[in-house]
Amino acid sequence: MANILKGAAVVGQSGGPTAAINATLSGVIKGFFESNGAVTKLYGMRNGIEGFIGERLCDLGEMFADSEGKLDTEKLDMLVSTPAAALGSCRKKLPKPQDDPAFFENLIALFKKYDIRYFFYIGGNDSMDTVAKLTEYLRTSDYEMRVMGVPKTIDNDLAGTDHTPGFGSAAKFIATTMQEIIRDCAVYTTKAVTIVEIMGRDAGWLTAAAALPRVITGVEPDYVYLPEAPFSMEGFYRDIEAAFEKHPNIVIAVSEGARFADGRYVGEGTQSGATDVFGHKYLEGTGKALENAVKEHFGCKVRSIELNLPQRCAAHLTSGTDLTESQNCGKTAVLSAVSGTSGCMIAMIREDGEEYKISYVPSDVTKIANAVRDVPRSFINEEGNNVTDECLNYIKPLIAGETKLFFKDGLPVHFIIK
Amino acid sequence: MANILKGAAVVGQSGGPTAAINATLSGVIKGFFESNGAVTKLYGMRNGIEGFIGERLCDLGEMFADSEGKLDTEKLDMLVSTPAAALGSCRKKLPKPQDDPAFFENLIALFKKYDIRYFFYIGGNDSMDTVAKLTEYLRTSDYEMRVMGVPKTIDNDLAGTDHTPGFGSAAKFIATTMQEIIRDCAVYTTKAVTIVEIMGRDAGWLTAAAALPRVITGVEPDYVYLPEAPFSMEGFYRDIEAAFEKHPNIVIAVSEGARFADGRYVGEGTQSGATDVFGHKYLEGTGKALENAVKEHFGCKVRSIELNLPQRCAAHLTSGTDLTESQNCGKTAVLSAVSGTSGCMIAMIREDGEEYKISYVPSDVTKIANAVRDVPRSFINEEGNNVTDECLNYIKPLIAGETKLFFKDGLPVHFIIK
Repeated sequence: MANILKGAAVVGQSGGPTAAINATLSGVIKGFFESNGAVTKLYGMRNGIEGFIGERLCDLGEMFADSEGKLDTEKLDMLVSTPAAALGSCRKKLPKPQDDPAFFENLIALFKKYDIRYFFYIGGNDSMDTVAKLTEYLRTSDYEMRVMGVPKTIDNDLAGTDHTPGFGSAAKFIATTMQEIIRDCAVYTTKAVTIVEIMGRDAGWLTAAAALPRVITGVEPDYVYLPEAPFSMEGFYRDIEAAFEKHPNIVIAVSEGARFADGRYVGEGTQSGATDVFGHKYLEGTGKALENAVKEHFGCKVRSIELNLPQRCAAHLTSGTDLTESQNCGKTAVLSAVSGTSGCMIAMIREDGEEYKISYVPSDVTKIANAVRDVPRSFINEEGNNVTDECLNYIKPLIAGETKLFFKDGLPVHFIIK
Repeated sequence: MANILKGAAVVGQSGGPTAAINATLSGVIKGFFESNGAVTKLYGMRNGIEGFIGERLCDLGEMFADSEGKLDTEKLDMLVSTPAAALGSCRKKLPKPQDDPAFFENLIALFKKYDIRYFFYIGGNDSMDTVAKLTEYLRTSDYEMRVMGVPKTIDNDLAGTDHTPGFGSAAKFIATTMQEIIRDCAVYTTKAVTIVEIMGRDAGWLTAAAALPRVITGVEPDYVYLPEAPFSMEGFYRDIEAAFEKHPNIVIAVSEGARFADGRYVGEGTQSGATDVFGHKYLEGTGKALENAVKEHFGCKVRSIELNLPQRCAAHLTSGTDLTESQNCGKTAVLSAVSGTSGCMIAMIREDGEEYKISYVPSDVTKIANAVRDVPRSFINEEGNNVTDECLNYIKPLIAGETKLFFKDGLPVHFIIK
């Protein structure tokens, strides 16, 4: 039996929002209500660790309890279908414990002040880095606290997990929108190229999802260019010429992170060169750069479309599978921590066999943080201009199922934490 | 009693695709099946009048009949939820009858060849121009044929009708997406401006819809700039300063057609100056132009988002009211023609009273073609930086209701006419 640790919990959301990050939060809330009293209180930190330091907390247990103190499932369902970090987010990178022990001493003092014994952090790579650093510091402290990371990223690029919560919903939105754009572009008989730029700075998973309709409805873009396969302008022009032999309306999916063999980004010409706080290059304009190139080279009608923020916040079209799994990850984090686990991220392991089935397994967070999981070369065709059916069959079960929405006068209603 | 005209019908779709144009087509098909034999056959022209001239026709009556010759309603429902002109489209402008009578003689010969006595054309302003010219020519011809226009445009800028089929669905998509973007942008505490560029070259109806959540869920963008109110950079900067006093995350909706008092488009700086076949200026980059201006003036984080094609093809999120009305317009066109009407467009008239109710009324197409219906000044606030509640209450009933989708493995399935 694990030793029972009684105390409050705090949960935060961090990094870029997704359409599923509140489903994960709902799982943490569910876990709290099922913790049999081990977790005495559930605080939400506003704007992640940054808000926690400023003691901007709310009482989630109280917020989601009905008049009898039980979980209000309708409120919870509404939270599930609300996009974009209901608690707010931040992009704060923690110092290394050895570089700034005072920072961590201050955190511990706050944990003590609120009797916080459980710390749950929902986020991507950078958030798992926070969980890893806090875990590292706690090893040198006599304050007993259990720390768990809950994965979240539409990019699907976290190591150690079959896929990430949030990816399935983004993939479903991208696949659905690509199908619609392909239909829209098919109505005219004049030569035209439509370039759809898809998120994914380093990994091409989201761009791969653009081809997903191929294995479901038989519809697909002509080409799919991922960051993992070197891009060449000559090859690109050749591809377009070959597609024009078949039909007048070409639709292309390209990752914002597409790059040449020498590592330069395709969008580099038009980008600012600015980097974000984690040192990642901030990109813009891969689609625009290719639009201009096609206009000049072919002189035909050309349009570029950036799917932009809706890829990560289109809560009106999410994957039922993704939201259920996201919730399960959150709940498993709480119940694992209650039973003694710490310093772990909840990973999803796909079981062998015909039927799609997922196990939720706490995994050492230090092995996950800061590692990037690319699309493997075997998922990309030989020419480097499309993805294989194997790749699509990997993604396919992740978009299955629809989500209950709450409509009022034709508009989805979200759960807003003031 | 009107004289009964027996013969085949032909239907075409023209102009920019919408998410509702196939619902209108489904209404024409429904009308055919309910025409009591007056319409003997229903041809679909591929790619509008252009395809008709090339005799590229399909037999819609056969395509949508079940084994007993009755209307296959499941097929029809799938067509309703399919975006973007299932018959294909074109942007052909007809010559004036007096300028090129041979062109029309050729058309009449084709009508005779297929015994076509009914002509239905689904489209916007430019398509109603086609209907008007054909009507004009038929007055001088002894070939008896009835010609009807069925409105379609997301822009809502057709004269003589309360609103246009296709607008409600686009408005619903825009309002929903704006809500999601506002939630997404609200997660951080750092100063940021997000500019959402919305379609509408001349009329600001679609951009107005961005503010719709205000009267439903209380959420809204900070400012809404329409082409109908002159734009000024000074006013824009003042607006942003005022909004920063209230909160760090500013979200702005701007029409692609926003223009200065002297008539220059805000996006003019970055546009090509090219015009389309109807002489309309082709715009790009209003959002991008403002993004650059904000970056320079405020030095804060700024992002522009072009909602782009999904505004007109997001069949996964349509207005039930819009699709029902679109279908009714199509059906009414057929039944009106059968009972003797010609040279008309089906207009929607909103009845007086508390309850939202629409009548479908054939109206002289020559009074409609080439007239543009702007957002009236009374729908815009005094400062010219937002729309009034009166405007939003006009739009509100048009987005109500959801649409049945056909999902396969998590992806919507469309009805494709090969």
